[in-house]
Amino acid sequence: MIGKTNFPFVKEGTELYASRLKHYVRFDIQELSDVKAGKNMPSDELKKKEAEQFLKKIPSDAFVILLDENGKQYQSRQFALEIEKWMIQTSKDIIFVVGGAFGFAPAMYERAQLKISLSSMTFSHQLIRLIFVEQLYRAFSIINQEPYHND
Amino acid sequence: MIGKTNFPFVKEGTELYASRLKHYVRFDIQELSDVKAGKNMPSDELKKKEAEQFLKKIPSDAFVILLDENGKQYQSRQFALEIEKWMIQTSKDIIFVVGGAFGFAPAMYERAQLKISLSSMTFSHQLIRLIFVEQLYRAFSIINQEPYHND
Repeated sequence: MIGKTNFPFVKEGTELYASRLKHYVRFDIQELSDVKAGKNMPSDELKKKEAEQFLKKIPSDAFVILLDENGKQYQSRQFALEIEKWMIQTSKDIIFVVGGAFGFAPAMYERAQLKISLSSMTFSHQLIRLIFVEQLYRAFSIINQEPYHND
Repeated sequence: MIGKTNFPFVKEGTELYASRLKHYVRFDIQELSDVKAGKNMPSDELKKKEAEQFLKKIPSDAFVILLDENGKQYQSRQFALEIEKWMIQTSKDIIFVVGGAFGFAPAMYERAQLKISLSSMTFSHQLIRLIFVEQLYRAFSIINQEPYHND
């Protein structure tokens, strides 16, 4: 993800679900520095600089999934099945990328294997990290047949 | 909403967005007590008891909208337009109801004017209150043409 969170509650919530998730799978969050953008930097330029940051960090053999408003939407149980499939498809790291406030530059769409969307609604990109980690935890609780998820 | 949140970060985040939202509109969150359910209470029975709690609290002339997995999904900008419409449709309170972990009893569907859904995914009903208040704040920032929301 790009940008450090400003909100202690986001950090706290994200850490809670991340620590639960780690019971199931190797998991790590990497926060990249915000691009230093003047107020007048056009959003395309900003996204391009963010993409450079991301691409420097992403290993060339990683399986890359963007959290994108035009991505595919899943029910939680379907999402868990997809994760199992992705883990079979690749023996490499699976990287979920949360972009900045304006979305992704074309270079990110070219690099990514997949786009997924959490909702038709736009959520704060601060909140997305929290919502998404809970959803990953939920998926692994489903995969491991734990009683966390109720249909 | 039913049930007090166990998580300080949910409370903190919800309060942050609620305080911002109150710049735009009269807004109030009411947390009803959890139904005391033994471990063996069937979920239908639990939902029925939760419905009784809700219906006791909801004024008979209120406009009631359930947050329900089978509800209508909106983009944030559409959701803002709908809220404006609902506010014209009724001069009474608009009440959004967040149910318990198992959803709603039939009595709640009978009472409600509408069902909306935040996502195809299931989110923790703890997190939903936070996500939803941010979305309400976003909607009112759109209605008031503030720069919070980026398409």
